[in-house]
Amino acid sequence: MRQVAVVGVGLSKFGEIWNRSFRELIAEAGVMALNDCNLHGNEIEALFIGTMASGLLVGQEHIGALIADHMGLNPIPATRVEAACASGSLAFRQAYMAVASGLHDVVVAGGVEKMTDVNVNDASLALGAAGDADWELFNGATFPGLYALMARRYMHEFGATEEQFAAVAVKNHKNAVHNPYAQFQKEITLETVMKSKMVASPLKVFDCSPITDGAAVAVLMPIDKAKKFVDCPVEVIGSGQASDTIALHSRKSLTEITATRVAAKKAYEMAKLKPRDISLAEVHDCFTIAEILAIEDLGFFGRGRGAKATADGKTALNSEISINTSGGLKGKGHPVGATGVAQVVEATLQLQGKAGKRQVDEPKYALTHNVGGSGATALVHIFKKG
Amino acid sequence: MRQVAVVGVGLSKFGEIWNRSFRELIAEAGVMALNDCNLHGNEIEALFIGTMASGLLVGQEHIGALIADHMGLNPIPATRVEAACASGSLAFRQAYMAVASGLHDVVVAGGVEKMTDVNVNDASLALGAAGDADWELFNGATFPGLYALMARRYMHEFGATEEQFAAVAVKNHKNAVHNPYAQFQKEITLETVMKSKMVASPLKVFDCSPITDGAAVAVLMPIDKAKKFVDCPVEVIGSGQASDTIALHSRKSLTEITATRVAAKKAYEMAKLKPRDISLAEVHDCFTIAEILAIEDLGFFGRGRGAKATADGKTALNSEISINTSGGLKGKGHPVGATGVAQVVEATLQLQGKAGKRQVDEPKYALTHNVGGSGATALVHIFKKG
Repeated sequence: MRQVAVVGVGLSKFGEIWNRSFRELIAEAGVMALNDCNLHGNEIEALFIGTMASGLLVGQEHIGALIADHMGLNPIPATRVEAACASGSLAFRQAYMAVASGLHDVVVAGGVEKMTDVNVNDASLALGAAGDADWELFNGATFPGLYALMARRYMHEFGATEEQFAAVAVKNHKNAVHNPYAQFQKEITLETVMKSKMVASPLKVFDCSPITDGAAVAVLMPIDKAKKFVDCPVEVIGSGQASDTIALHSRKSLTEITATRVAAKKAYEMAKLKPRDISLAEVHDCFTIAEILAIEDLGFFGRGRGAKATADGKTALNSEISINTSGGLKGKGHPVGATGVAQVVEATLQLQGKAGKRQVDEPKYALTHNVGGSGATALVHIFKKG
Repeated sequence: MRQVAVVGVGLSKFGEIWNRSFRELIAEAGVMALNDCNLHGNEIEALFIGTMASGLLVGQEHIGALIADHMGLNPIPATRVEAACASGSLAFRQAYMAVASGLHDVVVAGGVEKMTDVNVNDASLALGAAGDADWELFNGATFPGLYALMARRYMHEFGATEEQFAAVAVKNHKNAVHNPYAQFQKEITLETVMKSKMVASPLKVFDCSPITDGAAVAVLMPIDKAKKFVDCPVEVIGSGQASDTIALHSRKSLTEITATRVAAKKAYEMAKLKPRDISLAEVHDCFTIAEILAIEDLGFFGRGRGAKATADGKTALNSEISINTSGGLKGKGHPVGATGVAQVVEATLQLQGKAGKRQVDEPKYALTHNVGGSGATALVHIFKKG
């Protein structure tokens, strides 16, 4: 398998973007990514797009073809992949494999979701389709409820507090202030989180990532070719993907996500790295408890220690390990299909030293971690400066 | 890239399968495919699933994880892909690439769609999401209307008749009689087609493929390994995928599908074959006109000659070229996500000499052709006896 690099990245503005359609969002991010690496559209050989629920959210399927058309890329192969909120990373992994295998040289990985064209209830039902529709959603278990079960069990097993969970949101909003693409460029206090409306106890509104429109794009090519296009390509050195039961009630434990552990093991082995080698990680904080589980499952902190570590500031920018420098799903926003690719965008910008006021000091390795549903899919990628 | 073989295939019964859920359909086909090649589930390394519109049709996304879970395959990577009615072939192509690249050895490609849990109008709207939702579906153009435009233009350009189109349906129903998995195991006459209710002039009910529940599965592995499992593996010798404008009105011509031509060219080049080398082809006959365009775009007949050739019996079983021996989408049924994989199942059974009363005499090469929407995606695969 060939060595693969990310050479260009792009984002649309994340948020309630009422003046951009589904296809316009991805075009905005795509043009930015191509400009970033001095490429023309006619050099692109294949397209992989992650979108979760465009059928339910905007009445459109056949997303690969739609985007290839709108971007003027016909007749290249255009493939849409879906693994709920991990769709973006899944698209990135397919693009990575297409280049690594030698099948294609220049490949685009994109992710997009347009979530605010429906009302919040319908968006919640569409997101619920990431779980077991027959056994969870049908019985009323939407995602805040499922993650609340994990949070409550975590508190029971490890004595964690709601304030410790809230610290995740406070940190991620603080990072998001310096991300011009973030939905919420605004700091919040612990008090704001604690006093916000209860959604599913113990999770309050500010423990939850928002409904977001947005798109993200990354351009990949073999590393030897990459150096002809850009000064600082970012190499993909690890990729892992794993699955688990789709329903939360079938899992052995509510306080770890096995798919994350399996995917991380593969990615670390491939990269020949340990968790302590990682400078920064974009992890899947769809709810504050999700970030706590992630930093444990990825091996940054021991079991049951993530909540306290976060409250102690060990995951803040330029502390022990910088977690979610972009603002994460909580601060930057969570357009589900785009999220995994947006994480790659942040990892790339950080390793290129282009992250502005949220820049990690001399980062060596970056990791991205994307979860589908309550943990039925997980993908982990590891990057280094090329 | 490594040589890849199909070693096992399976189908669920196609039709209005009210006593099987979405996940049960794919399990039925999956178990059959594994038994077909003497494999156990724990030998499978990755799963690729094609499903078009499960969000709209059964309220379920995250399809890869759902199926990996229901089949007891966790924690393997499970990836759902979507390209409207070409989703099945797209899953097959990803599985092919995963094996060809050396990334995985034993990979399952599956396709599934459960379409009869909603009423016909909602199914029609879900299928409409394969076109341009903003510019076609929103304005009332569902698929019978779009293909009717192609049919009418074909009649105008080449002087074809409605009876010639009808001959496609008559032939495919005749083949379906001998396919125990087909939705319609029943012959029809030219008169039945001609007197059936008009849907979108000139297309009548019997010019249209039905709404179908069903699933199909193929198991792939490197050819050298394949011979340890089965006596007659079938080698994948060509794979092509292409995209075109998603809206029909943006195309240069209504009487050819450019994506088919581009994908076929790639597949023929890779296989080092010409159209005349092909013994049988499963082509995308979502409407009778679609089969006429397909046999021209694939190079079996010259432009404008497909309709007359069909009416003259040149595409019947064991004639000049055997087209849609399975019964095609028209006779076998069209569970959209499953269709592309079901085509691979038929190609495999034919090359293995296991097609019973619909067996082609000593077939050498088989081709499958799967279209998404009105032609925005096309995939072509070519197979030979291993």
